Amino acid sequence: MSRSIATRTLRATPTPLIRPILSRQLPTLSTPKRFNTTQPPLPTATSSPRNPYLFLGASAAALTGALLVGYATAEIVDAKDDSSQNIIPEQAQSTGEKYPKSLMVNGVELPVITQVSGDAADVDKPRLVILGSGWAATSILKELEPNSYYTVVVSPQNYFLFTPLLPEAASGTVEARSLLESIRKICRRSRSHYCEGEAHDVHLEHKMVEIVGLDGKHFLLPYDKLVISVGAQNNTFGVPGVKENTHFLKTIQDARTLRYKLMNLFEAAALPTKTDEERRQLLSFVIAGGGPTGVEYAAGTYDLIHYFPDLLEKYVSVTIIQSADHILNTFSEAISVFAEKKMQNQNINVITNARVTAVEKEKIVYKKKGVAKGEKDTFEIPFGLCVWSTGVGMRDFTKRLNDKIEMQNNKRALEVDSRLRLKGAEGIYAVGDCATIENPKMIDIVIRRFEKLGAQRLNYEEFCAVIREILAEYPQSRVHLSKMRQLFDDYDVDRSAYLELEEIQKMLKDINNKLTSLPATAQVAAQQGAYLGKKLSSLSLQAPSAWAVTESTFKPFAYRHFGSFSYVGGDNAVVDMGDGWSGGGVGVYFLWRGAYLSKQVSFRTRALLAFDWVKGMVFGRDITRS
Amino acid sequence: MSRSIATRTLRATPTPLIRPILSRQLPTLSTPKRFNTTQPPLPTATSSPRNPYLFLGASAAALTGALLVGYATAEIVDAKDDSSQNIIPEQAQSTGEKYPKSLMVNGVELPVITQVSGDAADVDKPRLVILGSGWAATSILKELEPNSYYTVVVSPQNYFLFTPLLPEAASGTVEARSLLESIRKICRRSRSHYCEGEAHDVHLEHKMVEIVGLDGKHFLLPYDKLVISVGAQNNTFGVPGVKENTHFLKTIQDARTLRYKLMNLFEAAALPTKTDEERRQLLSFVIAGGGPTGVEYAAGTYDLIHYFPDLLEKYVSVTIIQSADHILNTFSEAISVFAEKKMQNQNINVITNARVTAVEKEKIVYKKKGVAKGEKDTFEIPFGLCVWSTGVGMRDFTKRLNDKIEMQNNKRALEVDSRLRLKGAEGIYAVGDCATIENPKMIDIVIRRFEKLGAQRLNYEEFCAVIREILAEYPQSRVHLSKMRQLFDDYDVDRSAYLELEEIQKMLKDINNKLTSLPATAQVAAQQGAYLGKKLSSLSLQAPSAWAVTESTFKPFAYRHFGSFSYVGGDNAVVDMGDGWSGGGVGVYFLWRGAYLSKQVSFRTRALLAFDWVKGMVFGRDITRS
Repeated sequence: MSRSIATRTLRATPTPLIRPILSRQLPTLSTPKRFNTTQPPLPTATSSPRNPYLFLGASAAALTGALLVGYATAEIVDAKDDSSQNIIPEQAQSTGEKYPKSLMVNGVELPVITQVSGDAADVDKPRLVILGSGWAATSILKELEPNSYYTVVVSPQNYFLFTPLLPEAASGTVEARSLLESIRKICRRSRSHYCEGEAHDVHLEHKMVEIVGLDGKHFLLPYDKLVISVGAQNNTFGVPGVKENTHFLKTIQDARTLRYKLMNLFEAAALPTKTDEERRQLLSFVIAGGGPTGVEYAAGTYDLIHYFPDLLEKYVSVTIIQSADHILNTFSEAISVFAEKKMQNQNINVITNARVTAVEKEKIVYKKKGVAKGEKDTFEIPFGLCVWSTGVGMRDFTKRLNDKIEMQNNKRALEVDSRLRLKGAEGIYAVGDCATIENPKMIDIVIRRFEKLGAQRLNYEEFCAVIREILAEYPQSRVHLSKMRQLFDDYDVDRSAYLELEEIQKMLKDINNKLTSLPATAQVAAQQGAYLGKKLSSLSLQAPSAWAVTESTFKPFAYRHFGSFSYVGGDNAVVDMGDGWSGGGVGVYFLWRGAYLSKQVSFRTRALLAFDWVKGMVFGRDITRS
Repeated sequence: MSRSIATRTLRATPTPLIRPILSRQLPTLSTPKRFNTTQPPLPTATSSPRNPYLFLGASAAALTGALLVGYATAEIVDAKDDSSQNIIPEQAQSTGEKYPKSLMVNGVELPVITQVSGDAADVDKPRLVILGSGWAATSILKELEPNSYYTVVVSPQNYFLFTPLLPEAASGTVEARSLLESIRKICRRSRSHYCEGEAHDVHLEHKMVEIVGLDGKHFLLPYDKLVISVGAQNNTFGVPGVKENTHFLKTIQDARTLRYKLMNLFEAAALPTKTDEERRQLLSFVIAGGGPTGVEYAAGTYDLIHYFPDLLEKYVSVTIIQSADHILNTFSEAISVFAEKKMQNQNINVITNARVTAVEKEKIVYKKKGVAKGEKDTFEIPFGLCVWSTGVGMRDFTKRLNDKIEMQNNKRALEVDSRLRLKGAEGIYAVGDCATIENPKMIDIVIRRFEKLGAQRLNYEEFCAVIREILAEYPQSRVHLSKMRQLFDDYDVDRSAYLELEEIQKMLKDINNKLTSLPATAQVAAQQGAYLGKKLSSLSLQAPSAWAVTESTFKPFAYRHFGSFSYVGGDNAVVDMGDGWSGGGVGVYFLWRGAYLSKQVSFRTRALLAFDWVKGMVFGRDITRS
């Protein structure tokens, strides 16, 4: 799973490490006025050295001040000022007019829920159901016009998780809770309603989605518009032993478990009864997958051993096993090489061109590719902890829907058109990791033009017009179609000054092959969500009967890459902007932090994150096993 | 389990509730100079409203400033500047001179570990082993002269936990990690060594303590001085179903589980499929035990429902079941009544004089005391969550030791003399919740005086001399012996101007009955630890051969009560200073916070706690189920 975030780039050269700041510098700091601080009348303070009164006053005042500065400049909705979503209906209700009270599906009678919370008057609006609470879902909620729909968000987690920082949480640089924002709070902005549960199935014929509530009971939610943004799950690629013996890094629980396990291993290795060999095994950390998640986790783990200095040299090893030629292989090659060098400087082993064949209880087995015949190609590494972050696959719910719709036949994700509409279903959208945009049918546009022209060939002007039409419909092909003159000349092999059908077919096939589907990143999901939020807001201004026509002319989704980041250890990060701009170093590390701060969904998480980082610089890492 | 903290009192009247601050006030705040902040070159920031650049700069600068102000005034030991404790010996080692490499105990050959970590040269010092990492253990470490012993701390938790705030962590007012400080960091101050494990047994004949390491393997640690500060465990008092169906609130995991469970219940109750009755059951919180822990948890939980306003009126109930006449019955009666009134104003049910007889899966059963014959005396309350905080009992390790030593026959805790030496064992001390000071043998002093005088009665001057001798030996009897003239006259029933042996015996018996053992609080443990730390430091300046004599004349432990606090909800707290001073209200609430801030073991936890409280005031409670 790779997650990246948009920002501008900055080229910086590597400089020495920055470690917790230990010099004692006393900045001047004025006390905020007119504010009822937590500062109490001061009691006896025997445990604090020097001047605890000064300290308590100054720090409480400064902390309060900082929060208020941010508060004044940020957007916060009070927890109580809008209780609309909290009005819980007395019991499972149904208006009884438009929808039945219950419905028989797959041989079971399930209740039909038309009001999750909120005002009964609102339930007559068009119904929008959003499945999931991740990047795509929250981006929709952000763009959605308040009160435009009776919107229900359903997710098994009542929070949004800032996924790109999961490796940081797992290695203890930031607190797990600093990455979470309550989905109820986010819902409040768009006057949406939330219900904790998991999507089980979609009953297309009834336009209802079947939900399994937090308590395990099934019920039906009717929809006019349904958005599937349930994400993906970890993919074991059929390697035996992965589920039993490795840890994933996809949920906040994963991050917590990994942090606990990590401290456990360090404490176990520090026991006086351990032999050298046992210590080496306990402190061997293996990461399968060389994407940003794997690389950041490896780097964060290695940073940690500065807190156990004498375990470092003798016993700790961190290993990344990557199937491709390079780690960070979605970045430019220069960046991959820079990252590999950084890792090797830190004594992190990077094994490329290797395929994991099995994971046993305390041992990972892999095969090197391209080894000369007769030479050893199978290797083993004993480990104390193995993290699996190689890629994603479909969730059960997504699979179920995929099987049900005839037009769906992509094995990796749900196929949508360029306007993010689920192929073969009406009123349903799929966005984020669970969706993939179908390959453009550019040839159809060409054939339509031929029909219009009554000819089988195009001159340069006509060619340009066709390309512009293609670009409008399939924005993701822009990168391959921008140089029209060159394209025309390249494929006009007979130098006729015309492109014939065969020549055009050849060109489009080449381009189609070059087009790759969008990566499963936060950035893609957030942009798709924003697009959909805007579209749904726009549709809500029209009568539902006009929706189909309006949508077919609505501009298609266009992805814009704002760059990918990865932390590579030793206070170094790398960035790849995708348009030839890339860089790595300590400067990029601060840029990386700045970008992630700017991308927070709320001022609250932004303040928590900033505090975590400052805390880490002043106090170092928290090494409690808790 | 009741835990309280020392401070001066403040009498305050109740004022209206203080809730998260919502007005937007912008304090002026100067930027700290000469400091390399985390502030990066600012990237594009699309998600932040108004001026994110200003916000990021101001808040990062202010947070950094606050931490540095405190840092400059506080005592922090760098994570890396002293690696002595991190030098891990190659393997289980033994000097082979003073101690054997292994020893047969209870039929099993166990390794003898003489070096846990640190310099090999240090292992020749007298050996001090401290079991536990709580209030008593950390107070010892704080007072202990560095390098005075080869000190090894053994605890199953590699952190100190600030127990008085556990109810706050369980209801989400503070973060769990803000209550923890790494025991390795604390050990560094006194150059002590840490090893994660649990005490299993003491082999008195070998002067060795048997430890079960984190990995389950047993080993032996030799000691010259052994401190038992392992605390106590929750006491079910034999009520059936307590272990299976209730939650304790004693560890950081308990607090985390309770917080998760609480959010789970609120989310489950908000499901649209729930009936009214189901919601009432899910949102019924029952707390068995009306001490500070129970009261604070009830109040914190009730505060939370402001975030689910419409669940509040209809469905939520919080009930405290207390066996005594009043809740907070260690406080003065006025305070108990004040607290009960506050609770009732908030719709928290307080049931007193009730004995829980059974806890079933979703139902608690109790008997009211003093009910007229024929009337109903057994009641049931259905619950979604039940917290059990009624008192503490002995741990298995403590029981094992208790059974082994003939002179130990207290069923509640290990008996120590007034100098905290374990009765019937040499070189062992017990402090904190696992220990109780033996009843004073005041009569011995009187008999000794009789022998010296050659008489069987005392005149007033002689009586005063005896009492002063008793007070020096048994400081805890001060409160009952301070008014000597009155005592003398009261017990001189025959008005002879002399107290005869029978009269003195009667007086001492009455006083002994009035003496209560010290409560199992943080305050007692911390003072006992500090006393022991000072004593051990002082002993280390002498040859071990002189220890016994020096100790017998060392002044005995004297407890001084600095007051008990409890939060009672609605931003009100109560305080009882024990000497007639007591109070309750919003002012006390701030005093309570200030006292707890001042009592933190490190500047780090102090900063985290202050930040948590400010965060709560600005953003309200974090209601994610994670």
